[in-house]
Amino acid sequence: MGACPHAWQHQLQHRGRMWAASPAFRRQLFLLRSLAPTCADGGRASSSSLRPHAMSAAAGPVYEADAEAVVRRITPPLDRARHKGQAGKIAIIGGCREYTGAPYFAAISALKVGADLSHVFCTKDAATVIKSYSPELIVHPILEESYSVRDDERESVSSSILTEVIKWVERFDCIVVGPGLGRDSFLMDGLFLITNNIGLVEDNSLAILTPNVYEYKRLVQKILNCEVNEENASEQLTALCQKIGGVTIMKKGKADVISDGKKVTQVSTFGSPRRCGGQGDILSGSVAVFSSWARHFLLSNEQPKETSVNPMVLGCIAGSLLLRKAAALAFEKNKRSTVTTDIIEFLGQSLEDICPAGR
Amino acid sequence: MGACPHAWQHQLQHRGRMWAASPAFRRQLFLLRSLAPTCADGGRASSSSLRPHAMSAAAGPVYEADAEAVVRRITPPLDRARHKGQAGKIAIIGGCREYTGAPYFAAISALKVGADLSHVFCTKDAATVIKSYSPELIVHPILEESYSVRDDERESVSSSILTEVIKWVERFDCIVVGPGLGRDSFLMDGLFLITNNIGLVEDNSLAILTPNVYEYKRLVQKILNCEVNEENASEQLTALCQKIGGVTIMKKGKADVISDGKKVTQVSTFGSPRRCGGQGDILSGSVAVFSSWARHFLLSNEQPKETSVNPMVLGCIAGSLLLRKAAALAFEKNKRSTVTTDIIEFLGQSLEDICPAGR
Repeated sequence: MGACPHAWQHQLQHRGRMWAASPAFRRQLFLLRSLAPTCADGGRASSSSLRPHAMSAAAGPVYEADAEAVVRRITPPLDRARHKGQAGKIAIIGGCREYTGAPYFAAISALKVGADLSHVFCTKDAATVIKSYSPELIVHPILEESYSVRDDERESVSSSILTEVIKWVERFDCIVVGPGLGRDSFLMDGLFLITNNIGLVEDNSLAILTPNVYEYKRLVQKILNCEVNEENASEQLTALCQKIGGVTIMKKGKADVISDGKKVTQVSTFGSPRRCGGQGDILSGSVAVFSSWARHFLLSNEQPKETSVNPMVLGCIAGSLLLRKAAALAFEKNKRSTVTTDIIEFLGQSLEDICPAGR
Repeated sequence: MGACPHAWQHQLQHRGRMWAASPAFRRQLFLLRSLAPTCADGGRASSSSLRPHAMSAAAGPVYEADAEAVVRRITPPLDRARHKGQAGKIAIIGGCREYTGAPYFAAISALKVGADLSHVFCTKDAATVIKSYSPELIVHPILEESYSVRDDERESVSSSILTEVIKWVERFDCIVVGPGLGRDSFLMDGLFLITNNIGLVEDNSLAILTPNVYEYKRLVQKILNCEVNEENASEQLTALCQKIGGVTIMKKGKADVISDGKKVTQVSTFGSPRRCGGQGDILSGSVAVFSSWARHFLLSNEQPKETSVNPMVLGCIAGSLLLRKAAALAFEKNKRSTVTTDIIEFLGQSLEDICPAGR
């Protein structure tokens, strides 16, 4: 969908700090910046194992992740005593005049993976369409595009949108920014925006970027001031994560290569030869749920061994595998006519095949 | 969907009294208050067995209802001689800019359980979307949210909406207020509104409240001025019903606990471990139909034994069981990817399993 999603998990214990920072926002950045935990709880999940700036680039081979074991490990058992919301509340910030499919794919995928509630924050133009795709989603028509905002209104519109988003943002376990935000000057797409304003995620160990080949190229050029180097791909990826300050990056491709600046791992299970647009949105929605689950799992299993694992990396591994399994099943059934919706239909079976709900 | 539905059955023989009372409505309450039977026929169904204020809280164990027997007893036989509408005309008042799924789930569930007609009264923003979910529903885009109403217009807008609703309201067997009304100051969500304006349902033995854990907590704090007490849960629930004046309350949870201030009964048939948002809306739509059927059944079976039963309680028992059966079947098929729409698909089979249409 031309979208550049990246998933981003946080808790806003430091909401005050977020407020304090907001007046400094550049107008078109107010939304993303307002959602950045600004390292509020960066230490919670994995900072004990992440000292990016002190580290040197890791060398050596890239190991294939035991992705099925990761999925089985972090997926919570279905407990009869649980209440609505305890399996995950996800928010997608995306959807503009051009792109309505991308945020829908991400939001519905989150539900199909097992989240309890999935919200979408989008423009008024996009809201009616996204709602009509599915009654399962809660859609907030609160964003504005430049064509609908006079220059002299931008400040006030920005702050009223910010106020509305802040009302909601604390309720979510994970927020996905950027599927289908487009390139509107007042909106800007997630990863495109990050590339040009890296401070938004800098030193945020709960931020995940999921660039495709072209987005990765722009990131490398912008952050490392060089070209992509295939010979030292893993060292370059590690260096990129470290330079940004311990964010997790999943470089999408034939194999999805994942690093948090410390280790590099990959998922290369074959999915589907179809490259229909929207698969990256399924991925971002799935990674959002799995990284939330991984974080809860690690926070409730305090053994040193466990806490040294980065939940964001586990979330990427699990999301990557699930998409690939679902894409394979969808292609087996639909062949060349496979579209993104067909893949979403198989998310449930794919998860069930890996870790049965009855276990 | 974050909504707080409660079902509410009435006949408006005393429409005159409702009009007479209307000038006293507080502006944002006009709609709900206008729908309250103001005890008009509170005595019809069960007042002979309900003297709330004179009663002391019931003690003792909570008995499991024979829910299947209740469903079989109140579900009307399908008679070829019946006309459209005789199996139930249901109205849902809900649906705003953010929530369109909740009123849709309640309205379509009413049809799937067996009602003949299902109407939705919602805001203009919500109407187009809700219509697009299903051609089965009759959707009235007549409500307004504060952002679309100038302060100096509120009175006139209120009364014109009231006039429009009144035109319709007598035609329904049951009205569900509040799935997806949100918290807009001009709209307000059903149970949230009731909690803060208990007079709307006070002494109305045809009113049903279906709070979840959090909504129940707010009700107890507001009405009984204390905290939820798990040791004396059934006594507290009974006292709450009595204090409000004989309304029926179904406290949703692992077991749905139901009381009319006289007896306490529960339905604990296991449904599904999935807690996807929207199941409460299915419940409100189903309870609306079953409580209408129960009322008609009891009114046409005048034995003393029968009339001492509260049809609202029977409706809650039947609705609770049906949702749980449908959720179990949906989960068996869809596992972790089960969403509310999947559950609605199994309402018909669940009812058929309990009481075959051919009987």
